[in-house]
Amino acid sequence: MAGPEAQEIMALRDLNVIERNEAGIAAAVGILKQRFGERFQTGKALREQHAHTTTYIPVQAPDGVAFPDSAEEVKDIVRVCADHRVPVIAFGTGTSLEGAVNAPGGGISLDTSRMNRILEVNPQDLDCTVEPGVTRQQLNDHLRDTGLFFPIDPGANASLGGMASTRASGTNAVRYGTMRENVLSLKAVLADGRLITTGKRARKSSAGYDLTRLFVGAEGTLGIITSLTLKLAGIPQAISGGVCPFPTLEQASEAVIGTIQMGIPVARIELVNALQMRAFKNYSKIDYPESPCLFVEFHGSDASVAEQAESFGEIAAEYGGGPFIWTSVAEERAKLWKARHDAYWSSLTLRPGAKGLSTDVCVPISRLAECIAETEQDIAEFGLIAPIVGHAGDGNFHTMILMDMNDPNEIERAEEFCARLNARAQRMDGTCTGEHGIGQGKIGFIEGEIGEEGVDAMRAIKRALDPDNIMNPGKIWPIRG
Amino acid sequence: MAGPEAQEIMALRDLNVIERNEAGIAAAVGILKQRFGERFQTGKALREQHAHTTTYIPVQAPDGVAFPDSAEEVKDIVRVCADHRVPVIAFGTGTSLEGAVNAPGGGISLDTSRMNRILEVNPQDLDCTVEPGVTRQQLNDHLRDTGLFFPIDPGANASLGGMASTRASGTNAVRYGTMRENVLSLKAVLADGRLITTGKRARKSSAGYDLTRLFVGAEGTLGIITSLTLKLAGIPQAISGGVCPFPTLEQASEAVIGTIQMGIPVARIELVNALQMRAFKNYSKIDYPESPCLFVEFHGSDASVAEQAESFGEIAAEYGGGPFIWTSVAEERAKLWKARHDAYWSSLTLRPGAKGLSTDVCVPISRLAECIAETEQDIAEFGLIAPIVGHAGDGNFHTMILMDMNDPNEIERAEEFCARLNARAQRMDGTCTGEHGIGQGKIGFIEGEIGEEGVDAMRAIKRALDPDNIMNPGKIWPIRG
Repeated sequence: MAGPEAQEIMALRDLNVIERNEAGIAAAVGILKQRFGERFQTGKALREQHAHTTTYIPVQAPDGVAFPDSAEEVKDIVRVCADHRVPVIAFGTGTSLEGAVNAPGGGISLDTSRMNRILEVNPQDLDCTVEPGVTRQQLNDHLRDTGLFFPIDPGANASLGGMASTRASGTNAVRYGTMRENVLSLKAVLADGRLITTGKRARKSSAGYDLTRLFVGAEGTLGIITSLTLKLAGIPQAISGGVCPFPTLEQASEAVIGTIQMGIPVARIELVNALQMRAFKNYSKIDYPESPCLFVEFHGSDASVAEQAESFGEIAAEYGGGPFIWTSVAEERAKLWKARHDAYWSSLTLRPGAKGLSTDVCVPISRLAECIAETEQDIAEFGLIAPIVGHAGDGNFHTMILMDMNDPNEIERAEEFCARLNARAQRMDGTCTGEHGIGQGKIGFIEGEIGEEGVDAMRAIKRALDPDNIMNPGKIWPIRG
Repeated sequence: MAGPEAQEIMALRDLNVIERNEAGIAAAVGILKQRFGERFQTGKALREQHAHTTTYIPVQAPDGVAFPDSAEEVKDIVRVCADHRVPVIAFGTGTSLEGAVNAPGGGISLDTSRMNRILEVNPQDLDCTVEPGVTRQQLNDHLRDTGLFFPIDPGANASLGGMASTRASGTNAVRYGTMRENVLSLKAVLADGRLITTGKRARKSSAGYDLTRLFVGAEGTLGIITSLTLKLAGIPQAISGGVCPFPTLEQASEAVIGTIQMGIPVARIELVNALQMRAFKNYSKIDYPESPCLFVEFHGSDASVAEQAESFGEIAAEYGGGPFIWTSVAEERAKLWKARHDAYWSSLTLRPGAKGLSTDVCVPISRLAECIAETEQDIAEFGLIAPIVGHAGDGNFHTMILMDMNDPNEIERAEEFCARLNARAQRMDGTCTGEHGIGQGKIGFIEGEIGEEGVDAMRAIKRALDPDNIMNPGKIWPIRG
């Protein structure tokens, strides 16, 4: 069923072969073993775990895993790799969905888990500085008594270095922005071992190129982030949230569009289809109707939250939604969002033994309902099992294709479905990836999005900062030409 | 009075000499004259006007001014310049404060004023696409009936291409962000004449390097922007604004800090010192006390605006401010903000014949009061006339030094004052430029801010995309090493 064009696009990923530099790898492994002792490991299980991501893409393990304690040690590792022209791949928590931590040419995985210090919290300035291995939950636990929180929430308890590198976002992005908007500055070790600082703590700056934004989303291909200064938000005076069922997914999408266009400053507005609601019931034991739903949350003063909820309720009713089931109790709200965060795991219960392939398109909000409707038709037409969840307020939604990896025909159909979905989103002036990154999985689609000229510009920047291509090679764009 | 170190820093600017390529310039001028006819001008007055900016930096005129109509013509001009290794400098409205449109090695000024079409407005998606010569007032006039507006407001009626290139912001940035947050994507002609598209209209994307943000703030050194897709905001249901006097500038600064830290979503909060209030009285005929003031504006629903105003009033009173003089009438509000926008021109009335040098530091909000207090002391100590205005909610403020250009000693004192101010801001973890850009004026300060490694990374990116250094050469960083 896969057309020749889709096959070609998907195949680009598999063609992205990085040749192994065996002599260099052996030398680097030897030096790092001696220098880092127990903090450099070469056991197979550990190496494979460091290439394993929550993805269906086959594992390509690194040759060794280093556990640096400091930026100085990161410099040291990168210099060894540079001297021997060996790939170095930063690793956070391994929750990438696109094979971003795979090592197609082998090399060294640089595990940042020991670099997990919160270096500075400046409550007066609503910012903090952390090492890259700090996870978002760790940061929020640490901030608990300050009245502040870090709002970016991709679901997984990812590392902040990894979140920056994939330009992650998640449920709160519609109100608080993505990692793009919430990293004030960072430090990174470049391919030549030099440590770069991209800026100060000022809220805005016009001092030259935006190096911060260049590293955010670069997927570790330009350098290894060793610290990040992040914006924080005040915990709102009032938070309320609820679930609103709709007769159809299209009506739910229309209600999202109406909510955004009315300018309601909703903090979260998540679209869930009926199949995913069943998965939530199975896995998270929450009791809501098995019909398409919106999960919403409002932040603000007591008055503003009430006003927002009322306006949203009116819009939802206009599109046939309701009743609007509220959970003002914090514990119930937590349960609701825990279910949402576990969407990946709960969807896997719908087909035990299957592997999940999560799509990630993001379109202008006016095209959202149409894009989702065509995608649902495709799911039926291709005979796939694929629940839908989405950060609909941004125009971003995921289908989680549950694949029997022993059925090549099904895998082929899934890939054809993805190719059509990504092309559809791009045709609608959207992107194939709202928040997961290109990694290996979407390499075939980036040229369709920004053209050969754009990809060439990325390649030129990459060559300028990493001429030997040692920083996470084989990611983001096809190797050719 | 200028210490040797400050002299060295300021001198870097003057050392940034770009050698003139006389033969190339003559050839390019000849070709462009033939190709563009009346739309290529070489008259002295026009050329000087195209290097003239609202700045004290001496004029360095280009050799000719081209007026392209389209991206195709921009490609054409850039290709001619590339073939002959001739500088090409994009020009919007000439309101740069840092010599960004000067032509230190001569070359061609590319005036975007004819590229002033609003290509697309998508009210449902809250975005629009414009050519670079469209000014912000033109865009807002065009949007009038849509219920939307473009919130970035640097005061001057600048072109949107220029605003993107300097990463401009202004009074609304505290609520709506800067050009960094409000350009969704753009098209630009690179130094090799190829047209690049940086992305689609999706609100967020993780598709490779953030080329959009790389061009925003690049001051035309990487390419010529030929169109921009911008975020728009809904015109708030209610707007109210007012002026609140304070006994001292420090108390006013403290009130700003309190307002931001309380999380009041103020749309504008502008600091004005007593001397600037006098200038407003002179020039704009507004009738307020000649004491330090905050100009504030609140956007939201009727209820939310009232709530914000009440909270602000309480904080102001805590710091000795008041009475809070309100102007709920739209015309009065317009007069107030017109005065604020004309700050540059009104301050010049304080010393007829003087030239103005506007500083632009931006510090973390917790350091704002301290930074302003030390700066006020310096103004007195150096015997300068320098009113202060600031986008205080971001920690950004300007001193407008009024200089007698016939008094070398005064110029030297002013430069020493600037060097101290910029170093102070950087020491406080802030920037020497919150929104004006580096241009030529602040070339001596960028290494103090992001280090040699950061500047080297910028140079490497520049070389990768513009190996012959034809795109606005001699800006942003010192030529050396």
